[in-house]
Amino acid sequence: MRRHIYCVLMAGGSGTRFWPLSRRKKPKQLQNIASNKSMLRLTVERVLPLSSFDRLLVVTGADQAAEVRKQIPEIPSANLIAEPVPRNTAPCVGLAAIHALKKDPDAVMVVLPADHHIKPVSKFRTAISTAARRAIKGGLVTVGIRPTRPETGYGYLELKEKPGSGQKPVMVKRFVEKPDSATAKKYIRGGRHLWNAGIFVFTARKIMDELETHMPRLHTGLMEIADSIGTRLYNSTLEHVFPRLEAQSIDYGVMEKVDQNEIFTVPACFHWSDVGSFAALPEVARKDKAGNVVQGDALLLDTNESVVLARGGRLVAVLGLDDVVVVDAGDSVLVCPVSKAQKVKEAVGVLRKKGRTELL
Amino acid sequence: MRRHIYCVLMAGGSGTRFWPLSRRKKPKQLQNIASNKSMLRLTVERVLPLSSFDRLLVVTGADQAAEVRKQIPEIPSANLIAEPVPRNTAPCVGLAAIHALKKDPDAVMVVLPADHHIKPVSKFRTAISTAARRAIKGGLVTVGIRPTRPETGYGYLELKEKPGSGQKPVMVKRFVEKPDSATAKKYIRGGRHLWNAGIFVFTARKIMDELETHMPRLHTGLMEIADSIGTRLYNSTLEHVFPRLEAQSIDYGVMEKVDQNEIFTVPACFHWSDVGSFAALPEVARKDKAGNVVQGDALLLDTNESVVLARGGRLVAVLGLDDVVVVDAGDSVLVCPVSKAQKVKEAVGVLRKKGRTELL
Repeated sequence: MRRHIYCVLMAGGSGTRFWPLSRRKKPKQLQNIASNKSMLRLTVERVLPLSSFDRLLVVTGADQAAEVRKQIPEIPSANLIAEPVPRNTAPCVGLAAIHALKKDPDAVMVVLPADHHIKPVSKFRTAISTAARRAIKGGLVTVGIRPTRPETGYGYLELKEKPGSGQKPVMVKRFVEKPDSATAKKYIRGGRHLWNAGIFVFTARKIMDELETHMPRLHTGLMEIADSIGTRLYNSTLEHVFPRLEAQSIDYGVMEKVDQNEIFTVPACFHWSDVGSFAALPEVARKDKAGNVVQGDALLLDTNESVVLARGGRLVAVLGLDDVVVVDAGDSVLVCPVSKAQKVKEAVGVLRKKGRTELL
Repeated sequence: MRRHIYCVLMAGGSGTRFWPLSRRKKPKQLQNIASNKSMLRLTVERVLPLSSFDRLLVVTGADQAAEVRKQIPEIPSANLIAEPVPRNTAPCVGLAAIHALKKDPDAVMVVLPADHHIKPVSKFRTAISTAARRAIKGGLVTVGIRPTRPETGYGYLELKEKPGSGQKPVMVKRFVEKPDSATAKKYIRGGRHLWNAGIFVFTARKIMDELETHMPRLHTGLMEIADSIGTRLYNSTLEHVFPRLEAQSIDYGVMEKVDQNEIFTVPACFHWSDVGSFAALPEVARKDKAGNVVQGDALLLDTNESVVLARGGRLVAVLGLDDVVVVDAGDSVLVCPVSKAQKVKEAVGVLRKKGRTELL
């Protein structure tokens, strides 16, 4: 029996660390951050050869659905799943699973964030195919990223054995949450930890079983929604049930609790970045000779290792500054050091408190 | 005989160090740099009690005349003197002198740059009155600024004796051009040097005599223009003669060459700044608790000792940066460290070379 791959793109994030580009109705994943295509569109093009538009499911927020449709006009409307409210990844994955099951009881789900940078795609597709073959045999499969630094901002996968140099699946001993700096360094030295990139592969049936075991109330809610799929009652049921579901990550709610013999990872041989903030752009976008990422009408003099995005149709001149982020979004301008690009989030919080919703 | 004071405001500079606020048609002196009035308007209000609108002469560039008229609607049109081309201060002072002489052969001229910050005005007016009394007795009088740092960007006045603590006129031994750092330090230690602020007081007749002696060709040109004042030939004569005059500063062309017994200075007891670049704004404008000068819709988080001018009607957010200049002028944005605010000039040069005249 031929099993079909359903690619589930999680495209619901708010991407506040990319303010002022990222906005409520058009967050990071819907922006052309590092190229002339949006991250979502790039993700679609990356996964399409593994699947088809018919088997592509995009889960997004109600606010963003219109923009998603604009960016992926090929998607059947039933495949564009709008969450009435954000409820983290466990309800998101569950919602996608019931939709996939309705189409195909044997669906293999490839769950991917829609805002990551991955290169080259060939290695990525091989890894996903390998993960899918493993998932069909049973188990929950992740794609693990070989760490390049003792990052404290990611969760890790602790493997039962050191991975080989290729993309052969390895058993995962446990999921570990974001470590402190000393622990992260130990992980790197040990060679048995990979970054958890939030890429998961499993059959829809398997993940629903695990949700039933580990998040029974979520499962009950999902089954109620599942019954309404394809009926006139779908929207009202979703709007009634979904907001009451527990906001929880699939990592914490399921992966960390599943029997360890059931979890596998495919160690990735591709370059990966979650493009977590403007500071990540030099990793993933084209740089000039001085190490600057420059977009739009910009004039840089004696400026190095900086990110200057002139998206406002105005000249942005930067003189004599290194390691700085300058973003002109048209109605707002951001200036901060690359090292504090994470803090952009805090500015968004302040603007929200001040009621400056027109800028969010 | 009562002698009248004619205030001559030199308002012809290009102010490129204040780009992107400062523009060809509206340079620094016509901008509200540090308050809600332009520097020219503030200068007018500062000198008016010493003189009157009838005896106020403003020399500016042809490009800026319209904006000057807008900012000083009270000025008689004959008193707004537009230079066809900039020719530095000697021709500027000479042009004002022939206009003043036409009105009043006994005119006392107070020549002032229109883009300086001076406080309090009471001390300034006393100093000017003292200088005017000295000038009526004979000689060329400057107002000297007591130096507060070994500045290498200004010329100095070397006095024959140390000045007292007040504003009593002192004889000047010589004008010295911008010194190197070691020399400037020596000047400060010695206590016999004042900054040359470009404020001059003399009778119109006296300066014309000195121009005749030290810059005879300039004098000849000026006399040709003088003959046409009040006739239909004035504009064409000015346009024909003025561009051929030698571009020279009054300091170098006259003051440095005049017999030393003829030059006096009134040591100022007021605070003075030439507001030479954005870096000078913290000296002359209101600061917040973190030492920032902030104008417009700005959000500063963890930012100190910075200058953030949000003049574009957009939000400007600055996070985690100290000692930075961020200026949004609407059609362009500038970001540079306070310490490199002088270099803004270079950016203007680059834009000019690139033909971006719409931004200049």
